[in-house]
Amino acid sequence: MKIGIVGLGLIGGSLAIDWRSLGHTILGVSRRPSTCEAAIARGIVDRASCDLALMAEAEVVVLCTPLGAFLPTVDQLLPHLSPETIVTDVGSVKGWVVEAIAPRWENFVGGHPMAGTAESGLDAALTGLFQNCIYAITPTAHTPSRAVEVVTQLARSLQAQVYKCDPQDHDRAVAWISHLPVMVSASLIASCMDEESATVRSLAQTLASSGFRDTSRVGGGNPELGVMMARYNQAAVVRSLQGYRQQLDAILQTIEASDWDNLETLLGQTQRDRPAFVDPA
Amino acid sequence: MKIGIVGLGLIGGSLAIDWRSLGHTILGVSRRPSTCEAAIARGIVDRASCDLALMAEAEVVVLCTPLGAFLPTVDQLLPHLSPETIVTDVGSVKGWVVEAIAPRWENFVGGHPMAGTAESGLDAALTGLFQNCIYAITPTAHTPSRAVEVVTQLARSLQAQVYKCDPQDHDRAVAWISHLPVMVSASLIASCMDEESATVRSLAQTLASSGFRDTSRVGGGNPELGVMMARYNQAAVVRSLQGYRQQLDAILQTIEASDWDNLETLLGQTQRDRPAFVDPA
Repeated sequence: MKIGIVGLGLIGGSLAIDWRSLGHTILGVSRRPSTCEAAIARGIVDRASCDLALMAEAEVVVLCTPLGAFLPTVDQLLPHLSPETIVTDVGSVKGWVVEAIAPRWENFVGGHPMAGTAESGLDAALTGLFQNCIYAITPTAHTPSRAVEVVTQLARSLQAQVYKCDPQDHDRAVAWISHLPVMVSASLIASCMDEESATVRSLAQTLASSGFRDTSRVGGGNPELGVMMARYNQAAVVRSLQGYRQQLDAILQTIEASDWDNLETLLGQTQRDRPAFVDPA
Repeated sequence: MKIGIVGLGLIGGSLAIDWRSLGHTILGVSRRPSTCEAAIARGIVDRASCDLALMAEAEVVVLCTPLGAFLPTVDQLLPHLSPETIVTDVGSVKGWVVEAIAPRWENFVGGHPMAGTAESGLDAALTGLFQNCIYAITPTAHTPSRAVEVVTQLARSLQAQVYKCDPQDHDRAVAWISHLPVMVSASLIASCMDEESATVRSLAQTLASSGFRDTSRVGGGNPELGVMMARYNQAAVVRSLQGYRQQLDAILQTIEASDWDNLETLLGQTQRDRPAFVDPA
């Protein structure tokens, strides 16, 4: 199969590596000529170009640019394609992506391979990135079943676990488990830095160990990624933050009221609930 | 030196192992005869008893019971000791401990070895638990310098890094970096479970990966430990939660206002601030 990859970064490059090793022909598009050259030199793609016209030959086109570049890219891409070409994407938000693209392209299937590393860019692309990861696919009632089937098979061929879900449900779910944690964790760092006593702040930095390290990790990550989550999944992120704030207030009130039985009940419940998220059956 | 350990759990047992291996004589007290027998059988202590009278011989006594047992234990312990006996503790909160014990025992030095494992009890005790860990020591202006020096040397002999600090500063600092993260993390789990759509909740559980795993870890821990933090460090924990809530509200308002520049500035700041906590110079 001829597969077009638009955007040769960590995800696009890693998809290209795995699919090419399975015998597919990979056509890559990047804005930068140097990235095209590097992708060819490393054997990541068969051919590469800065011109989206290269996608005319592809049977499946995968949008792998940052979310902010999706709409202008699609505007330029679609005129090159024949109607049976399947278009999919790897964006971490699905609601507005599906709403924006599906009405303009019948054979569009939203996708979200949930993999990554701390690195970005083509240099970070690697073999087997998606192995055992979840690959969410978000067809609608109108998505042609052949397109869903092709994207599903391509995802499975990466040894990813495919989950089909509604785009809005996807966005609400990732707001809870991916986007909210970033805001929660960033607020932790910011509030510690707000401590007015320099002595206490410095002591906190000295005494911080694994608990702080883990809880603050995602809040100390790439700020552009955090903005992207909030911007493109705004409604679901606001909803999650509001729900979170209620829980935080409930804990604060319980502690202020010295209601230790209730606090123990609450913390006992979170202890029992966590494994469903981190140790899926 | 003859060292008495009151409370033969993970911390008390691990202190006993290391100090005994350095040539000290270790006298252990546990409420349970079976724990005393196990401590002798494993060679963790030289002698053990359920009776605090055993401490009469000790030159240094280390309180290693849970915080909730400190005051009744001290009531029973002090009448057995000669005035020059140094008493210290390993409690994770220092303000009220120092306030409660120092007026009753001149040679009292508050301590907090910041080490642990997910396990508890004497069975979990191990060699080298405190190596490279921070051991906070919280003398006051009235603590005799000899007592501070003896406890400092004992802590250093474990290959721990000793930090001396004010008891109240200690409690404010651990509220930020240890106790607040538990409440922040528990609120995350609780709010995800509050999602009204069972489909979205189940999808969130399926899609959760390393970001959620790390941010939720300390909120899914031992509820008794969480209650202990809030109960014995109530003022500092409430203060930290209130400061945290302000930061959370600021982020929520920034997102509601679609103020992406401000959000990026804020997340850029947390990215720059985190290393001071997790990669101390």
